[in-house]
Amino acid sequence: MKIKEFQKKLSEKRIDAAILYNMETGRENANISYLSGYKGYGFLVVPAKKSPFLIVPLLDIEYALKSKMRFYIMKEGFIEKIAKKIGMVKRIGVEATKFSIFAKKKFSRIFKKARFIDISPLIGELRMTKTEKEFEIIKEASDITNKIMEKCINNFKNFGTEKDIYNYLKIECVKNNVEPSFDFVVASGMSPATPHHIPTQKPLRKGFCVIDFGIRYKGYCTDITRTVYIGNPSEKERRIYNLVLDVQKNAIKNIKIGRRLSDIDKNARKEFGKYAKKFIHSLGHGLGIEVHEQPTISSLSKEKIKEGMYFTIEPGLYFPLRFGIRIEDDIFIHKGKVVNLTKVPKELLIVKPKNF
Amino acid sequence: MKIKEFQKKLSEKRIDAAILYNMETGRENANISYLSGYKGYGFLVVPAKKSPFLIVPLLDIEYALKSKMRFYIMKEGFIEKIAKKIGMVKRIGVEATKFSIFAKKKFSRIFKKARFIDISPLIGELRMTKTEKEFEIIKEASDITNKIMEKCINNFKNFGTEKDIYNYLKIECVKNNVEPSFDFVVASGMSPATPHHIPTQKPLRKGFCVIDFGIRYKGYCTDITRTVYIGNPSEKERRIYNLVLDVQKNAIKNIKIGRRLSDIDKNARKEFGKYAKKFIHSLGHGLGIEVHEQPTISSLSKEKIKEGMYFTIEPGLYFPLRFGIRIEDDIFIHKGKVVNLTKVPKELLIVKPKNF
Repeated sequence: MKIKEFQKKLSEKRIDAAILYNMETGRENANISYLSGYKGYGFLVVPAKKSPFLIVPLLDIEYALKSKMRFYIMKEGFIEKIAKKIGMVKRIGVEATKFSIFAKKKFSRIFKKARFIDISPLIGELRMTKTEKEFEIIKEASDITNKIMEKCINNFKNFGTEKDIYNYLKIECVKNNVEPSFDFVVASGMSPATPHHIPTQKPLRKGFCVIDFGIRYKGYCTDITRTVYIGNPSEKERRIYNLVLDVQKNAIKNIKIGRRLSDIDKNARKEFGKYAKKFIHSLGHGLGIEVHEQPTISSLSKEKIKEGMYFTIEPGLYFPLRFGIRIEDDIFIHKGKVVNLTKVPKELLIVKPKNF
Repeated sequence: MKIKEFQKKLSEKRIDAAILYNMETGRENANISYLSGYKGYGFLVVPAKKSPFLIVPLLDIEYALKSKMRFYIMKEGFIEKIAKKIGMVKRIGVEATKFSIFAKKKFSRIFKKARFIDISPLIGELRMTKTEKEFEIIKEASDITNKIMEKCINNFKNFGTEKDIYNYLKIECVKNNVEPSFDFVVASGMSPATPHHIPTQKPLRKGFCVIDFGIRYKGYCTDITRTVYIGNPSEKERRIYNLVLDVQKNAIKNIKIGRRLSDIDKNARKEFGKYAKKFIHSLGHGLGIEVHEQPTISSLSKEKIKEGMYFTIEPGLYFPLRFGIRIEDDIFIHKGKVVNLTKVPKELLIVKPKNF
């Protein structure tokens, strides 16, 4: 996506070429994947004024063919090969949090006078607003996500443990030919008090049960959360659930192109009143190729809401050793409108697991 | 594992402290995981002569509790906090291929006179030979792997496409509460000619079908491959399959403590005779916390076979646009004996998929 726009940004910053790499087998580099479609091991080289190309190992040739970008097979001396192709450039763009001190040493031996400049923010900016083509994929991804989450909630009578729910979601992913976008959270009883709880094989317990689920479909992520109730909620529990729900709905109502994301977050915190201290994470985060990308929706966000942004709205309240509640929808700013892609009902739902 | 041995190695190299980090949510750093059991986001600090500790974000607190290592919550100024704990040290051990130029800049601001020294080889060396406790886990992992692969091969009549097989294996992983250790390869027809083929939804075809599968169980990986045949193999196909099988069996027979791994690889290549050029990858690789770790088994290997080593033996022949064959077992050097953990039969097996 947007490789020409990226090259334009490189020129503006007087960067001769960007060099990105992925040295971990079985993992993709999100920026390489975004710019080239290549999901394998190797290097992506994007000169500001020439055609970009990949350097890939022979074993990953199928991934390279899928990317439709020009590629060369990685052999000894491939850094010299890159230098031959792009010239002895002096300003090289790299991902500063990924470009290692080892890589710097190797590249500096060939590109003797090079300076390495961080280009992650440039790509982050491009990725932050999605194209119409990306919107179409994301909509499909959301439809699958909604379907699986609804099926899961309707299947509660067959679940005995958190792990049952977790495994059900994973198997649904396989059946739908999608990947999990992160390690799902299923937290029952006191466990939802920890936002990143690890699912256990203990019996499901009375109280709130948080299910945080998301998929990766054609390279794009979703991330939604529903909190259901096992047993009979007290008046207070109902009241607190509805407070989270109101804050969540109001936050979505508050979204308008041009508004500051930090204001959306601040307003949600204000609405939580005396419970604001129990809201221990940010209101939301951008989604896309990665399950966390720009923009962040917190009091520190600097961005204003723009066309093409895609992010979560997920207020939550956490009472240590008691319970936790989180409700999370995925929002897309599409053709000037605020589209809530998450269609799973969010009024408080009472469920009955196996043996309950 | 082996944290004391690691500290001893740090002292020997006059390294004051090692600092490792994981800045990617949802991914673990294998060395941190190995040394501390911690699988979350954050930092592991191992001073040569004091107790090691973790710096973790509040959200990952459950992972930190599981690790049983001392930990502090990550807050602004945590590099200063590290400096307070370990002192203004000058020789800091880092993972050179992971420690980024960004991290170097940040740490250099606090540790003004520090030199950063690569400690990856030190940990790689520790990880290369497994303990008895690791052997027990790996044995269990292999038992599950064998069981799933056998079930899969026996289930061929229900498979119509490569993707069916791939999905079956993934669902079996979920049912057995294990993770895939890599993205499985299922390659039918001409596809096995590419060792890292991406499974498709086209009907399975006559010819060899390569299934490369592995799991991660309690943090440890397996990686096995079987090649079955769909339809009736020609004489030549049988002959070539049996050649790969013989080379594989002989390679395992050749394994003895004290022998050079490079000799095992060289010998296998020699046995392939005129087909040696069709064997386009190394004979095997170490397994453990990662699906590829030390030792490598190639003509370039410098290691001799040692007690506690755990690696694959996986010769293969690849005939572009025609077919491919690979047979891969997992070998453990245990109490002086060569233990083949892979029990799935490997004589040529003819299978019959759905609609065949």
